[in-house]
Order: sequence, then structure tokens, then C-alpha cells
Amino acid sequence: MPPWGCKPLYDTLAETMNVATHELRCIDCGARIAGSAVNSIFRCPTCNGLYDVIYPWSSIPNGDTPASDSKLPNASALRWLWQERRTSSLPEDQSGVWRFRDLLPIIDDPEKVVTLREGNTPLYDLPRCARIAGIDWLLAKHQGMNPTSSFKDTGMTAALSVAQERGFEWVACASTGNTSAAMAAYAARAGMRSIVFIPEGKIAWGKLSQSMDYGALTIQLKTDFDGCVNVLTDLVNRFPIMLLNSVNPYRLEGQKTPAFELLEQLEWQVPEHVIVPGGNLANSSALAKGFTEIHHLGLIHRMPKISIIQAEGANPLYRTIEENGGKELIPVKANTRASAIRIGNPASWKKALRALRTTGGWCEQVSEQEIALAKAEIGAEGVGCEPASAVTLAGLKKLVAQGKVGREERTVLILTGHTLKDSDYTINYHRDELFTDAENAQLSAAEKAEHAALRKPPIVLEADTNVVYRELESHMKLAQQV
Amino acid sequence: MPPWGCKPLYDTLAETMNVATHELRCIDCGARIAGSAVNSIFRCPTCNGLYDVIYPWSSIPNGDTPASDSKLPNASALRWLWQERRTSSLPEDQSGVWRFRDLLPIIDDPEKVVTLREGNTPLYDLPRCARIAGIDWLLAKHQGMNPTSSFKDTGMTAALSVAQERGFEWVACASTGNTSAAMAAYAARAGMRSIVFIPEGKIAWGKLSQSMDYGALTIQLKTDFDGCVNVLTDLVNRFPIMLLNSVNPYRLEGQKTPAFELLEQLEWQVPEHVIVPGGNLANSSALAKGFTEIHHLGLIHRMPKISIIQAEGANPLYRTIEENGGKELIPVKANTRASAIRIGNPASWKKALRALRTTGGWCEQVSEQEIALAKAEIGAEGVGCEPASAVTLAGLKKLVAQGKVGREERTVLILTGHTLKDSDYTINYHRDELFTDAENAQLSAAEKAEHAALRKPPIVLEADTNVVYRELESHMKLAQQV
Repeated sequence: MPPWGCKPLYDTLAETMNVATHELRCIDCGARIAGSAVNSIFRCPTCNGLYDVIYPWSSIPNGDTPASDSKLPNASALRWLWQERRTSSLPEDQSGVWRFRDLLPIIDDPEKVVTLREGNTPLYDLPRCARIAGIDWLLAKHQGMNPTSSFKDTGMTAALSVAQERGFEWVACASTGNTSAAMAAYAARAGMRSIVFIPEGKIAWGKLSQSMDYGALTIQLKTDFDGCVNVLTDLVNRFPIMLLNSVNPYRLEGQKTPAFELLEQLEWQVPEHVIVPGGNLANSSALAKGFTEIHHLGLIHRMPKISIIQAEGANPLYRTIEENGGKELIPVKANTRASAIRIGNPASWKKALRALRTTGGWCEQVSEQEIALAKAEIGAEGVGCEPASAVTLAGLKKLVAQGKVGREERTVLILTGHTLKDSDYTINYHRDELFTDAENAQLSAAEKAEHAALRKPPIVLEADTNVVYRELESHMKLAQQV
Repeated sequence: MPPWGCKPLYDTLAETMNVATHELRCIDCGARIAGSAVNSIFRCPTCNGLYDVIYPWSSIPNGDTPASDSKLPNASALRWLWQERRTSSLPEDQSGVWRFRDLLPIIDDPEKVVTLREGNTPLYDLPRCARIAGIDWLLAKHQGMNPTSSFKDTGMTAALSVAQERGFEWVACASTGNTSAAMAAYAARAGMRSIVFIPEGKIAWGKLSQSMDYGALTIQLKTDFDGCVNVLTDLVNRFPIMLLNSVNPYRLEGQKTPAFELLEQLEWQVPEHVIVPGGNLANSSALAKGFTEIHHLGLIHRMPKISIIQAEGANPLYRTIEENGGKELIPVKANTRASAIRIGNPASWKKALRALRTTGGWCEQVSEQEIALAKAEIGAEGVGCEPASAVTLAGLKKLVAQGKVGREERTVLILTGHTLKDSDYTINYHRDELFTDAENAQLSAAEKAEHAALRKPPIVLEADTNVVYRELESHMKLAQQV
């Protein structure tokens, strides 16, 4: 209870929540276990598969019917409840994740959630980007507006709440930066200790500063992201540490809630398309789970297509689909400036494949230059994002050009990180120092002109009014001509 | 109207808003003018004083009575209206500024506001910082959780909406970084062009990256912040550019709304203390205006004390109060690592002085080392902030030690910027590279130990499980001993 004495407004309705009634189900062999019985690496001991969190009332994509004893209120009662909670001052109601707690009963006491008031992220319309991409209606759901400035917060509030309830004192993750920032913040909030493993020299400094600031023990390993995962997997078998990479299925329960929030913001009208960046591939999986559950519950009557965009230099899912139809993952040596998706061996590839197939979406890849251009275009709308987020717009352009997305199809980009997450990238781009000469030489004249029109390098001038006056005059004349 | 067709929920009540009924009133000579008649430098042509925005229903601190023809709904109707708007999907209702538009009728059509869904920032309790400061109850209102990651967004949504309504195509500001980021984003949102003047080499790079990303024309002048203000003041007299520094009184109308939001989050229970960083001094002024207006309207029955904390190296208000009792500003050559408050000649010093006197708060100064320590302490709560925000906690410690704030007094720190706003500072602090040897030599052994306990420099290790195992073992043992 907060010290200023506000009271739960909806005690009675909150009891409709089915407390701790979840199970975990292996996505490969289908084996079910109690949530509390899971091993430290969150993988099926029989077949090494990942788990889904399932509930008595939840359908699973491959076809089970929900348990008939579901106590969940009906669709309109849920919508009303979620809306009303927005007027409450309680932390669990002000959280954009726990406001939907009826659909993630993974802890016993929702008053004890570890929250930084994540979620409640804005939905922006992007009229100029829509025009560039060639469609009528484009929105961005900006998950970079979360407390630690990335979408990972929605997952960490869920997983840290479970870790706290189960008595863990230590948590750990391997990270390209965003995961570690989120984990460190939520662990600090819960009074827990956190360890982050980061590939040495390959992450954005801004992100590393966050894990230090939030008091994590930061260990840079002389390897890449996938190497960090390997070391960490060994360690959680030997220490009482909860593993907080996205194999932890509780993270995905939090990360599914932006689907609910998005639908609520659209007054429950389903967009045709949702486009997500593809790194470790848990985000697309989580959103698909959210849409699927809410479809099953009858709050929406059709599913949006979910498409996944990868960087050309970190395209294991794209290659897997192209080269073997999704049978077996083709890991790659990841190399892209979009550090948040620099992942060559993504843990959740099967879940992501399921999301693509269930919803009828596509997987596409985009070049480094396409990412940079799209990032600048999103920035010029006054919105901004980190490079990895911009693959969504770059991918949309391709999907439209290929005729896969029609002009009239309503599309939502999921922006995953704030522009401040990687300010070096932005600065280098605008100073034209991001790409090598060899890379720039590959651009056509038209492409070069597109970049040049967006670049805004700072101008250094003497602090003399007349000098500045002349400079401004030339810019204003230029603007009039445009 | 957004294309997905949601409808204004509260048409009727929204009409209670007194459209464009404001005037500007000089804080020095009291002269009143229509808002549309103001000059380009937003200063009284008679006495060069700054303006307050005033309304028929608003009281002014020096004693006028409100006009009797006020059409404003009563206190409980307003509270209900503001709460209900939280359930709406309209941009102007989802904005934490325009949700309170009844108290800032500065534009004719609230459907045309330029908004990034600013405001709605979290209120965190800081139990460990409270213990460190020696009080029972400490909260942080985190304005760094705004779209461009600083409190400036609440002001820019207001000022840009006015600029758009008045037909300006260009806007400009001088900035230590946060102002420019916010202005550039809102200008881009409105389809307007923006120019930012930044002191060369003295701002945080993260912030500069934002104004480039949002498409501003960025001009670095070879001078300090105050020099930038001088050049800009000349220019707005010669070009049709709206000046967006905090002399623009419309910015303060937006910046007063966090006071309303804070009170709403506290269920309208007034805290004893609100502590604000002091740079250009508009923020403290704006919050005081917010509290004063809402007090006048009867929504609260007493005022909180508002205290202002400055860095020792940028302490013009502190010196002015200490040395001449607030008679005449003593400008200083500003020098502090807390770049957002590196201002030696603050425009709004008289308004800030009025805020201190009206509310009974204090002005205090804190050292560079005190700022760094407080920043790390706020970070270790999982919250984080930029250096300038941390002066609030550092100042609180001093006020408690001096007996000015009692243990039982409920205190709210206003955190003004996100930790990502200055990641270099964080990295340098944790690596013990922030201060010179001479500075460190001035610390006592106890102070050195305080810093050392908070520092979390990254450890670089080989990607070998056994190596990492041994390292972790030592940290876990250490943690058990603590």
C-alpha cells in the first residue's frame, strides 16, 4: 500500500483473476509442467524445447480447446475493467502490463509486482513515413517510451515479479544492451542483485551506462552475444540465479501486453499488419501470443498479420525460411550496426516461425543503408527510435514494393527502443561518418540524395549575430524553395 | 480526428474550457496585453519584465481577486473530468498536459494540439534514498520519462501549439541540450522548422543527437549558454521565428501541469515539500504557478514548499539570495558537469524568487561530488536520472541536516531528465574517471567509501565458464557478507 493511502478501486473485480493457475507447455513435445517445477535453463528436459505459459482459459495455437471451468469475465467486462483501471493510482493499475493482469496470472499477489509503470506507450501516426512507404495509414507503437527506454521493460516486470515471488536473490542475462538495462532496473527496484553479460566492444555505450547506473554487476565477455548465452547457461546450473534471457517464458507474458494496449488504443479495431524487428525473436512471438489469446477470448474477431524484419547482416530467420522452408535454424555470424538485433542464433526462432504461420505474415531483410534511411525518416517525424526499430519501416517499404502489403492496409510498426539508446549512431549518420566509402559507393545517385536531404550535421559558427544572420538567411531561402 | 474513428467522450464538458481567454501580465510593472499582441522577445516593452499568462479565473500571487464571471466547473467536477479523460483514446486526452486543458486555455482548438503524449510520468517511491537523506517518505516525480526524455516536453507541447495556431513556420531556442531536443521533436511533429543554438563543446552528446534526429538545424556557437541567448534574442527581432526559450510564457503553462498530475497521483493530498533543480529557473516557477492556481481554485487547501537546488558552479540564485537578499541577480560564469543546469544568468530568476517566497521554500547549492553521489543513489533504486536531476536529492540531504526539512515531512523530488540523457557522465563516474585527482583528494575517507560502494565498473573477462564462475563466486560471497 502506498503511504498516501489510496485504495484499490476494483477489489471485487480484481478477484476474477485466476491466481497462479498457469502451467508451462513445451512447444516441441507438448509436455506440461507446473510453473514452479521448471529447471534453471527454462527448457524441456526431454527434448530441449522452449516453454509457453498456458492457462486453463487460453487456447494454444495448434488447436487445444480451453478448459470449460474458466472463471474469466466476458469480453466486454474485461474491456471495461482494463479501461477503468486507467483511472486508478495504484502501481499495479498504472502499469500498462499489470493493468491486463487478468490475462497473465503468473504470480499470487498482484499487489507485490515489481513495476516501474512500464507500458502505456504512445501510438503515433506517421503520415510522412506512410507517404514514403506508399500506404495510406501508418502508425508506430513506441515501446522505446518505456522506463528504461526499450520494449524489454514489459517483459522484465513480469519475470522479476516471478523471480521475487520464488525467492531468488540473483538474476542474470546475456544482452546486446537493452535486456541488461531493463533487468538491472527491475532487479534494483526489487532489491535483488543482477549480473549482465555483454559482448565486449559490440554494444551501444548508452545501454551499458544504464546497467551500471542501476547497480548491476556488468561483465563484458570476449565473445559475441551467442557466446554470452552459452556461458550464462552453464552458470545458472551452478548458482541460484534466475535466468532472464527471453527463453524465460514469463518475460513473454509481459511482452504480449502491448498487443492488448495497441488494440485498446485502436478502440478494438484490428489493424491489418503489425511489423516487428527480428533479433532474438521473442518479441514477435510474444505479440503473436497476445493477439492469439485475445482473439480466442473473443475480444477481437480476426488476427493481424505479424511480419518480422531482420538486418541483412543478422538474418538467420530469413535465411532459414528461404533456404529450408523453416525446417532447421541456419545460424549466422551476426554483423549489423543495429546492435539490438545483432543476434545470429536466436533462441525463439520456432516461436517466431509459428507467429508468422499463424498470422500469415512475412519475414524480410533490409540493408544497413536502408535501416539508416528509415531511422532518419522516423526521426524527422519528431518520433525517433534506435536503429533496430527502424528495420520495421525499411521492411514495410519492401513489402509494399513487392505487393505484399496493399496501400489501404492499416499497418502498425513496433518501435522497440528510444533514439537515445544509441546516440553515437545518430551523430555518425548525420555527420556522414556512419558508412565506409565502399558502402557509400554502392548507393545510386537517387539514394545518395535521399540521405543528403535528411542529414542535419551541426554547423559551428562564431557567436556573432551578423554571421548567424547570413547563415540563417540562406537556410530560410532554401526552405522556401522546397 | 484519428483515422480509426474514436469519438470525443466528453464533448459537452470539454466546452467548459474557456477558449483563448488568456492575457499576458508583466511580472514587474503589471501591464497587461492580449496574448496575440506580445513582441518577439516575450518581454514587456516598458520595463523589460517577463510575462505571466493569466486567465479570468486565475489568481495572481500578489493578490488580485479572480473575475467573478468565471465559467470554470467546480473542484470536484474538474477532478472527475481529468480522471475520466484518462480512459479516452484521443491524443489531447492521452497527453498529461492537455488532459488539464481547462487550466491552460491558450489555444482555440484543443483538437489541434501538437502532442507526443507527454506527461503521465511515473511517481516512484525511493525508500533507500529516503533512508540516506534521513526522512520517512520520499517520492520522485520522473519528468525524464517524457517522450524526448526530459521535462521540457510538457512546455514544448504548449508553446508549439501556440506557435502553430499563430502561423509561425520557424521556431528557435538556445539550449544546454534538453530544450533543443524537445523543441526539435515537437516542431517536426507540427511540420515546422526548428533552429537550435547550442554552446560549442559544452553539452551532452546524447542530447545533441536528438535535435539532429528530429531534423532541426543545429548551430553550435563559440560561446556559452548565455551567449547563445544573446544572439538568439537579436535574431528573433529580424526573422519571423517564434522564440522558444523559457522566457516564452506559454512553455510555463505546459510545465505547470506536472503539479496537477502529481497531486492527482497523491489523491489530492499535498506533500510538504517539492524539490526542483535550478538552472534557467523556469521549471520551479512553472510548478509554483500550477500549485498556486490549483490552490486558488480550491482543489487543494494548502501549498507545498518549493525548494530550488543549484550546482555550486552555477549558483546565481543561491548567491543572489545569500549576498543581496534577492534584490538584484548576481550572474556567474557557470561551470558544472550537470550540463542541463549550467546556466549563469537565468532568465526566470525573479519568478523563481517569487516561488520561493510564496511557498516558503529554500534555495541550496551542492558540490559536483554530492551530485555524482546522489545520482548513483537514485540509479541504485532502479530509477536513474541525468546529473542535473540528482541535485534534488543532494540538496534534500543538506536541508535535512540543517533542520529545514523534518523527518516526517513528505517530500517529492522532481527528476528532470532520463539517465540516457548523459550516458558519458554515468560511464565516467563508474569507471572513476569523472573527477580530477585534485577533486578526489578533497574527499574524506568516509566519502570515498560511499562512492566506492556505489561504483559498478564493468569487468572484462574471457568467455570461459570457469573464469566467470570464480569471479561470480567472489561477488556472491561478498554480497552475503554485506
